[in-house]
Parts: sequence; structure tokens; C-alpha cells
Amino acid sequence: MEDVGRHMKLKLQEVERWGRFELTLSGPSEGNPFREVRLSARFQYRNRIVEPEGFYDGDGTYRIRFMPDCPGVWRYVTSSNCSELDGHAGAFVCTEAQEGNHGPVRVKERYLFAYEDGTRYMPFGTTCYHWTHGGDERLEEQTLESLAASPFNKIRMCLLPTQDMKPPLQLVFTGEYPEELDRTRFNPDFFRRLERRLEDLLRLGIEADLVLFHPYDKGFWGVDNMDAESDASYIRYCIARLGAYRHVWWSLCNEYDFNKFKTAADWDRLLQLTQRCDPYQHLRSIHNGTKMYKSSSLYDFSKPWITHQSIQHWDAELTTSWRNAVAKPIVIDEISYEGNSSRRWGNISGEELVHRFWEGMSRGGFVGHGESFIDKETRAWISSGGKLYGECVERLAFLRRIMEEGPEDWLGARSAGTYSLLYFGRRQPVFHWIDWPEQAAYRVEVIDTWNMQVTPLAGVFQGRSKVELPGRPYLALRVRLETESDAGHPREQAVHAEGGRCG
Amino acid sequence: MEDVGRHMKLKLQEVERWGRFELTLSGPSEGNPFREVRLSARFQYRNRIVEPEGFYDGDGTYRIRFMPDCPGVWRYVTSSNCSELDGHAGAFVCTEAQEGNHGPVRVKERYLFAYEDGTRYMPFGTTCYHWTHGGDERLEEQTLESLAASPFNKIRMCLLPTQDMKPPLQLVFTGEYPEELDRTRFNPDFFRRLERRLEDLLRLGIEADLVLFHPYDKGFWGVDNMDAESDASYIRYCIARLGAYRHVWWSLCNEYDFNKFKTAADWDRLLQLTQRCDPYQHLRSIHNGTKMYKSSSLYDFSKPWITHQSIQHWDAELTTSWRNAVAKPIVIDEISYEGNSSRRWGNISGEELVHRFWEGMSRGGFVGHGESFIDKETRAWISSGGKLYGECVERLAFLRRIMEEGPEDWLGARSAGTYSLLYFGRRQPVFHWIDWPEQAAYRVEVIDTWNMQVTPLAGVFQGRSKVELPGRPYLALRVRLETESDAGHPREQAVHAEGGRCG
Repeated sequence: MEDVGRHMKLKLQEVERWGRFELTLSGPSEGNPFREVRLSARFQYRNRIVEPEGFYDGDGTYRIRFMPDCPGVWRYVTSSNCSELDGHAGAFVCTEAQEGNHGPVRVKERYLFAYEDGTRYMPFGTTCYHWTHGGDERLEEQTLESLAASPFNKIRMCLLPTQDMKPPLQLVFTGEYPEELDRTRFNPDFFRRLERRLEDLLRLGIEADLVLFHPYDKGFWGVDNMDAESDASYIRYCIARLGAYRHVWWSLCNEYDFNKFKTAADWDRLLQLTQRCDPYQHLRSIHNGTKMYKSSSLYDFSKPWITHQSIQHWDAELTTSWRNAVAKPIVIDEISYEGNSSRRWGNISGEELVHRFWEGMSRGGFVGHGESFIDKETRAWISSGGKLYGECVERLAFLRRIMEEGPEDWLGARSAGTYSLLYFGRRQPVFHWIDWPEQAAYRVEVIDTWNMQVTPLAGVFQGRSKVELPGRPYLALRVRLETESDAGHPREQAVHAEGGRCG
Repeated sequence: MEDVGRHMKLKLQEVERWGRFELTLSGPSEGNPFREVRLSARFQYRNRIVEPEGFYDGDGTYRIRFMPDCPGVWRYVTSSNCSELDGHAGAFVCTEAQEGNHGPVRVKERYLFAYEDGTRYMPFGTTCYHWTHGGDERLEEQTLESLAASPFNKIRMCLLPTQDMKPPLQLVFTGEYPEELDRTRFNPDFFRRLERRLEDLLRLGIEADLVLFHPYDKGFWGVDNMDAESDASYIRYCIARLGAYRHVWWSLCNEYDFNKFKTAADWDRLLQLTQRCDPYQHLRSIHNGTKMYKSSSLYDFSKPWITHQSIQHWDAELTTSWRNAVAKPIVIDEISYEGNSSRRWGNISGEELVHRFWEGMSRGGFVGHGESFIDKETRAWISSGGKLYGECVERLAFLRRIMEEGPEDWLGARSAGTYSLLYFGRRQPVFHWIDWPEQAAYRVEVIDTWNMQVTPLAGVFQGRSKVELPGRPYLALRVRLETESDAGHPREQAVHAEGGRCG
């Protein structure tokens, strides 16, 4: 094995850390290669071994993709039940990650996320379920432009089609009409188009929260009630093709409880399969659909194959109780969308959605965005992307800035007494008591979450202090312990031991 | 017995139905008449007998009050353990009720209220806990003026003082300072002043929801941890003095669960005592204090001595679940007050309070108002009355008008398909499908709950119809089956079988 490295040293392919190595092989095209050909490769760096599966890409082409996670020379050898594909060996060099590549997102310290290189990551997600399905290049480019100009760094998107989609379509399986759909054969064109969009998202720094199943088919395409073998084959194909993209998350199902063909045990099984097959252990969750105030119907997120809580609920104040229930990050992917749909999930005002973001984040959760203005040119952003019309996007950019200016673990910092972000919502007190220890000197700012203004209050506060407020809704208070750099200036007298005034 | 009537026929005192008959007697003033003298009277009309207790009013004066509930000649005879007060007999004539007097409010058809004469009553309550305690006549008059100009027809008010009140005060018991308070002797002056204000409220058509206990004393006056005998004596005195006012309701305790000296069993006992002693069976409830999302900590309103559910909770959407849980009227007496207090219970915006009223009422509940602008001249309305500064009062008057224009049982009418009030809250759909039966012809209006506008949509709708909406928050739809009087006009073509437009 040593020889391989020495022999190929000068011409080894280079792949950056968390980049994608891809091996292309030729093999049989007869029969159904998707189901009949088994292919995988064993990648090894020192004692570390990773064995991703390969996939059939049509026309006798097979590929094995691999995302290396540590720099150095990786060697590989393929295995297959097909002799043409078996025993191919080689190596490549994994180099350091380039700028902007921080690796996959992982859970950090129970309730937070971070990229694998330790860089902070706070999801500000949006939702465009089927933006890659219509085959409209111009619309897809427009969606990417909208995303590029937005604060969003995660997008929820589906692979399977919905009932109301009409051909011509790009579908996961071959066939354009329900009666001709072959659920045993994948459509490489669909995936190639999808992958091009995944590349676009990667370039924009946007995580792709891929929704593998959903209940919106109602038997039309027959993809919501496939047999166990087809479900498993689909999941493994997705992992083989898409798992090497570092920014992929697995959302096993959207509104899983609305799919009457599958039980909770089915979802357990498919989640476990995903956990077992994914060499990279991408983030993994499942998203509930049931109605408000039935939070007991949330999936049991304490199950070990779940990495984070992907919640649909319209009451962000419950974030605290979900944190207390399960020590995993809270992502409220659906909290109702800004828009004017006739449906309850898609017609809240921008003011209300911004409010829910602040409420959820100040309680230690992450909230997801969506837009559904059904009377606009491109109809619902959540379905097909296009333009964003809502009032909340710029406010969410402001919120993101505020959150990024604060400590990574903002609730932890509050407990430690170094930082606090208090959100008043639709409450409008004219003063607020900050009850910090006697010796604590701190700065206070009033944040107008809707008008996107930060107003620092003059001077330094110390100990228990009364802070006067403008007495209108949608304000927050940011309290920060005076830092060393502040203290570099001649320390001002703590002027606010008995109360400050908002300018 | 016949003789009494004949003999006194020409000079019998007249008291209107649900008015107040009062018998004044002289008796002993030595000792402690409040505790030592027992006095009651047996009032009889034909076979109907009612036996209210009397009370000591100081200076050797004793009174027995009685509210007759049916017209005719009522005879009475007193009983007492004191010979001077025992055996007084007489009669009076109960006449028909005068205009504006509809009797006490009763529960009607499980979830509704009505006056005893059958006149509709929908509580639009407000809260001025201690407006009669400060001894400031000018402020009390101002409070009455504010009430007269408001839509409120119920007021929550306390009898016992709070910890932070300073003398000079009018207190229920004798003594002006905690150390001199004698909890075995009532203060007739306090009650006489209170009664004058009860008369004022009666004149204004405002029900007096009297809060007998509360937890805001914290041992200061010693009235939140009295012994069982003193509690009972206090309740019986209140019933004897105040029960004959037809507009009195008994709210046994405010935020009862914040009083750590008493258990749920104590409240059961005191509620049962009230039920046993009150000859008129005024409305009876108890009001919880515990925090949001612990709705399980609400008092068990299914207990038979409870007439209606007096709730503190900030989520009006739960109205539906409370209705499902217990078939008694829902009165959300505290849903957070409009204002700018630093406390969460008293600082929501007017917009938010109006929203909560609409949300609660459209779900079949009644919501209570309060105001707490702490930087205004008279400080919090909820404590001491005075002026109203908020933005919501005129909107609540508008809501009251809308509700009064609708059927008494608006949820029942919805089920019957004759009326529907749909509130969209912070949702802003641009259309809404009304799914009425094919043969139903109906009128639709768009209601702007904040701007207080009712916009009728042109024409008649029929069957399942799509109604276009302006797509902004805080709208409601009012749908009314076309009535006979509408039909008197030449019937217009049903123009909206396929959709209407909001002007």
C-alpha cells in the first residue's frame, strides 16, 4: 500500500478538506443498475476508514463520492458485485480547506450549532420546497439572487414532487407521468440539476436542509406510500449522491404525521437507516405537522438518531419548554409564514413573523422563515422561490447582525452575567429593572426590532439599575458587561445606579 | 296572616322587583355585636320563603336587607338571639321592575349570561381593584365618568386593602393601622361608602364583580391569613350587607393560588359557605394567578359551587379548550392589561389587547379589560381608577356593538348556519372560502377591528363562495344569512357563487 502513495505522489489529485472527491467508473447499463449493482469504496487515511456507497448515474456511468475530513493522503479501493467496478484502487491528497469552507455543521454544546472547524453557525433558515423542480432556469437564478441578498444561511427544500405539480417536470424517478413513474429507477438528470443548485448554495454559504419525504403526494405520484425496499433504496441513493456535499442536512420528512401510510416506527427505521448509511453523520431530524397546542405530538426528539429538534409550532414562547424537555438545538422551521394565503400556515404579517423570530431566539431557539404572497408574480416563495416581497427580510438581517454581535451562547452568557438580550415583544414597559450584581458595570442599548435601530443609553450602569424605556412595542434591551477595551478609556462614573434614560 | 295584608294595605312600602327592601332596627351596642348578635328575617311570598341574615351597622343600628324577586306582598318576621331584635313582623309590596332593571345576571345555556328577566347580557368587564379605598371623592367621580363613557358593563373591585396602601384609608375592619386593626369588627363607614358607589354602578348598568379575598397583603394588615371563623364572619357580613344589590357577583379570591396561607380545600369551603349563605345565588367564581402555560393550575371550575370560569391567562386561543373542558361561561378577567408597567401583567399595547378580545370572543369567551399606564397622573386605572388613556377602549366599544348586533349565542348560530364571525387576527389572507350549504344566501361584511370600519361586500353570496380580502392584519368577516326583511326587497341575483370582492 505504501507504493501507491510513492508511485502517484506527483500526480495525485488534490481535494480540499470537506470538499468532494469523485471517482467515475464505467459499468453495465443493462438490467436495472440502480437496484442490481452494489458499489462502494473503502477510503483510508492512516487508521481512519470511511466506506461510502457509490451510485449509478445512467448511461453505464457509476460514481463514488467522498468528502474527506482530514488533510493528508487518502487511499481507496472499490468493492462491487460487478467485476468491472470492483477493485479499483487509487489515492488523492486532501489539502487544507480553502477560505469560506468550514466543514459541515454540527451540534455544539447541546443547544447550539457550529461548523466542524469550530466557526460559529446560527441557522437563519428559509423555505423553498420545490424551487428546483419546475425546470425554469430564470426563476431558479432569481431565487439564488434573492437568497444572496438575504440573511438566510439555510434552506429547506424537497426532493419528491407534490400532487399538484404538472409535467414537464424534473422528477426523482424516471417517467414524467404518474402512470409511467418507475420508482425503482432514479432520474440522473434530476439529481444533476439539483447538484448544480447545491453548488450554488454552497457558494452562497447556505446549508441545504433536504426534505426526503413529505405527505403532499396523496397517492398521485405514488411516492408517499412506497414499499420499505423502495424507501430504503431512495434514502441510500440520496446519501450516495448528495452526502459528500458538506452543507447537506437530512430532514427525513416534512409534516410526517400527515402521512397516513407510515407509522412512527417506519420513521424510526428510516432515520436509523440514514444514521447507519451516512458516512458523514450530517444533521438529521424530522418535522411535525400537527396542529397547535398539541406539542405532545412532536416527534420524540430525545431518540438517539435525532440531532436537533425540527419543529412546527406557532408559539415561539414554547421554546423554553422544548429546551427543558430535550437537550438538543431547537429549530422552529415552521412558525407560520409571512404572506396572504388563505391557509393559516401562510398568512401572518411581517411584523408578526419578526416578532416570533425575536421571541424564539431570545429564548435560545432558532426560527425559520417562509413567505407566501399568493397574489404576486411568482406566487409562494415557499413553493417555488423567486422574489421576496415581505417586510420581514431586512428585519431578520438586522436580527442576525444583532445575534452575531452577541456571544455564541447567548443564554449561557446571560447565566454568566456577561450579556443579556431581553425582548419585550408586544409589551411596552416604560422602565425595566436590571438586577445585576453590585460590582457589575455594564452598557445598555435599546433595540427597536422593527425600525432596526440600536440606541445606546449614555454612561455605565452598575448593579441593580432602573432603565427607562420609550414604552412602545417590539423593543429589546441589550445589556453587555463592560469589557476590558471599554475599561481602557478612563472609566466613567457609573451614572445609572439609580436609573438611566433612553435617549 | 291574612289580616296583616288587609290591615296594612294602604300604607305598605313599595319596592320594585330586584330592588332592595331594608328593615332598620335598634339593638344593643355593647360587647361586639358583629360577632355576638345573630339576626335574620324570614321573608315570605305565598309558599316562597327566603331568609337573609341581617347585619350590625354600628351605633346600635341593625339592618336586614332583602331583594324580592317576584311581585306581590311579601311578609316578614325577624329572628334574633337578642330579644330587642326578635319577632319584628311586617310586609311590603314588591312591584314590577322599573325600566332598566332586569334583575341579577345569571348563567344561560351553559356558556352565556342573561339578566334574570331574560334580557341579554354580555360582560365587557374592566378592573379597578381599589377605586373606593383612597377616600378621594374627586377621583371616584372621575372613575365613574370614565366608566359612563366606556363600553364596560362589569367591574372587578376588591374589598380588602393591599400591603402598600397608607392611611388615611377606608378599611373593611375598624382601625387605621395594622397594629390596631380589629378583624372581629367591621367598619360601617367603609361599607356605606362602598354602597354609595355600588348605587352609582347600578345607575350606570355596571355589574360589580366583588373580589372578597386577594393575596396582596403579605401579612401587613393580617387579612390574608385570618382564622376560619373570621373568614366566615367576613363573608357572611358581605352577603348580609351587599347581597341584596342585584348587580353583585362574588369573586372569592383574586390570584387565589398566590395566597400561601390557604389551600384549595379552604377555597372550596369558603365558596360553599358563600353558596349556602347567599339567598340570591349571585354569580360565584374564583380567579387564578399562576403563570402562563400552566393552565392545569386553573381552579377546577366543574365544581358545583362555581357558576362561571374566571380565568387569568394570556392566550385567548385557549378559550376553545376551556369551553371543551367545562360547560360554564368563560370570563378571561385577566389577559394582561394595556399599559406600560414594568410587570408582564400590565404592559401590552392597545392593539394587542383589542386583538385578544376579538380572539377570545370569536371563540365564545368573554374577555376583561384593564389599564396600567404608570406614568400618567392617576397611575394605574386597575388600582385606583381615574382616567382611561389607552387606545383600546373605543375599539372595545366597537366590538361590543358588533357583538350586540349579532345573535346572543354566536357560536350556536355558527353551527346553525345563520351567522358567523370569523376573526383573522395577525393573519392577512387575500381571500377566504366560505363553505355554506348550496341553498344558503348570505351577506358578507369585512370588519376592520382596529380602524372600526364595517365594509359590506356587494350583493348576495350563495353556497361555497370565495371572498376576497384586503390582506392586512386585524380583520374579521361577518357572515349573515339573508333574512326575511332582506328578502322583502326584490331578491338580487346571487352574484358571489364564484367569489366576491372587498370594496
